[in-house]
Amino acid sequence: MPQLVDVQNMCRWINHHGVEKLIAGIQSYIEEDFVRWESFDKIPRVASHTPIGVIELMPTSDSNEYAFKYVNGHPSNPARGYQTVTAFGVLADVDNGYPTFQAEMTLLTALRTAATSAMAAKYLARKDSEIMAMIGAGSQSEFQALGFRAALGIDRVRIFDIDPDAMEKFRRNIEPLGIEVYLAASVEDAVEGADIITTCTADEAQNTILDYSLVRPGVHLNGVGGDCPGKTELDARILDDATVFVEFPPQTRIEGEIQNKDDDFEVVELWKVIAGKHKGRASDDEITLFDSVGFAIEDFSALRYLRDSVAGTEFQEFIDLVADPDDPKDLFSLTTNVLSPL
Amino acid sequence: MPQLVDVQNMCRWINHHGVEKLIAGIQSYIEEDFVRWESFDKIPRVASHTPIGVIELMPTSDSNEYAFKYVNGHPSNPARGYQTVTAFGVLADVDNGYPTFQAEMTLLTALRTAATSAMAAKYLARKDSEIMAMIGAGSQSEFQALGFRAALGIDRVRIFDIDPDAMEKFRRNIEPLGIEVYLAASVEDAVEGADIITTCTADEAQNTILDYSLVRPGVHLNGVGGDCPGKTELDARILDDATVFVEFPPQTRIEGEIQNKDDDFEVVELWKVIAGKHKGRASDDEITLFDSVGFAIEDFSALRYLRDSVAGTEFQEFIDLVADPDDPKDLFSLTTNVLSPL
Repeated sequence: MPQLVDVQNMCRWINHHGVEKLIAGIQSYIEEDFVRWESFDKIPRVASHTPIGVIELMPTSDSNEYAFKYVNGHPSNPARGYQTVTAFGVLADVDNGYPTFQAEMTLLTALRTAATSAMAAKYLARKDSEIMAMIGAGSQSEFQALGFRAALGIDRVRIFDIDPDAMEKFRRNIEPLGIEVYLAASVEDAVEGADIITTCTADEAQNTILDYSLVRPGVHLNGVGGDCPGKTELDARILDDATVFVEFPPQTRIEGEIQNKDDDFEVVELWKVIAGKHKGRASDDEITLFDSVGFAIEDFSALRYLRDSVAGTEFQEFIDLVADPDDPKDLFSLTTNVLSPL
Repeated sequence: MPQLVDVQNMCRWINHHGVEKLIAGIQSYIEEDFVRWESFDKIPRVASHTPIGVIELMPTSDSNEYAFKYVNGHPSNPARGYQTVTAFGVLADVDNGYPTFQAEMTLLTALRTAATSAMAAKYLARKDSEIMAMIGAGSQSEFQALGFRAALGIDRVRIFDIDPDAMEKFRRNIEPLGIEVYLAASVEDAVEGADIITTCTADEAQNTILDYSLVRPGVHLNGVGGDCPGKTELDARILDDATVFVEFPPQTRIEGEIQNKDDDFEVVELWKVIAGKHKGRASDDEITLFDSVGFAIEDFSALRYLRDSVAGTEFQEFIDLVADPDDPKDLFSLTTNVLSPL
């Protein structure tokens, strides 16, 4: 019977281990999987768009395991009391096609997105980076901040959001954990002196959250919120000056900041940097941009990490999801005998 | 919190209502949804193939609800004690993207496949049809037989399978329900005098389960097992003589019997017959073929029917799958307070 980690157990699991440790653990799994990138079956995610949002399925597999995530994106949700993004995911055994593991992934996605951003920055940000600017104080913001401390030791964050309450919420959550938080008066104020700039906003429009004039040589840009057709955050001129690193080009060209560029716009695949096949940051003056949209392999890694971590613990339950009659050709027998599958 | 119908409750639900009544109920929902076919977001299913099987995701949506099914197909599974096909599915609210309902679908898929076959035959088989030949006595066979009795009153079945135990299993399950079963010695013997021929075998190869010479004028062919690239059941010459009805042409051209034909091979979309936009059977001599592969809208219909049927009953549980903090921008709060979401 497949294992299950529901929301309650996900909360307990995170509370038990702590966000920072789990992001670091998931990051190590993502790095392992990015190194063997070529062994995965990869497609752009399958999106169903409506005027107010998108629902997506993100499958991938290697020769042993299959994973997919269900995830929505509805920018108008918080104003109505809902999460912008909710998600759940499943692992399955490629050998017999049976699902083996199901988990909530609203929280797990926040952990894996932070882990991926932090992994990219480990290879792309200047080694002497000390200060991160964050534009956007929504659901992902605390996870991003803790991910960057775990991977790079960043303990100073300058944050800006158009919603002052969201900034206060960020400070309330993060300051007690020992990170110095500066509430900025504007984007300009936030990026002042920052070595790393993370943009993570939810508005579904071609915005210019970050203006060209604010990007100085040597900065690393972590562009998280430009992740959907028609949803970008950066002044397109920034892309011309930066070296742009992406996850899976066929998906990022549809969804990322580079959707505003031609199809042959030059990018570097992040996995090649992780695998040592392509250099990361070339100089202290280079502007690097991780044009993050989120790719299925990261969810595959996160689900594997969670599964391995909760195996045999109190954080795991079971879900009776696979009909399994004694005679595999006699599925019908289940309709006449009410058997307990346990 | 999303509703859940797990295997145990699916068995209890079917046992409570009976297979035949549920197939008829699901058929009525499929007919409703086929009539409004054009209002659905449709794509061919998303398949991940390996040497021993396939794992697929089948999404579709209208303007209110989104559905997807996870389903595998592993022909070598029964010999190893596993089901060839297992499945589960989810409904979600298009408005906010939240999942609302999850169910096991191994059994539900058997019900909906039979409902779809029976629906097609209601429009395509001769009205005086009395006898069905069935080639293949696997997991789907009893459901097909009961579906045809529910929709057309067929109560005589001539069955053949290369596995005598599977045929005996079929007789053991079906005869007590009042259907006359003849165990045939060969495919030729099975189709003798049959008005309807159902082929439903699991072997993943371009087989000729049914030879050209065995198909007489006026017969309706219900081709269920040719449903995957490289997996067909019919002598390709049969398709030249028959009028071929399909679900979603872009998917059937990849997966159905017509994969052995050119891309412009003429087919009729079944929904147009149901909606009264195209005639069904034209004469008593016509050979009609429903080249069934299974399409996402049928799962959408089956999930809706199940959801409506179990609402407020003992057959429904809940699954804690959507993280929902009080402040939608404060997802992080769930990591520090272990709240019961109930």
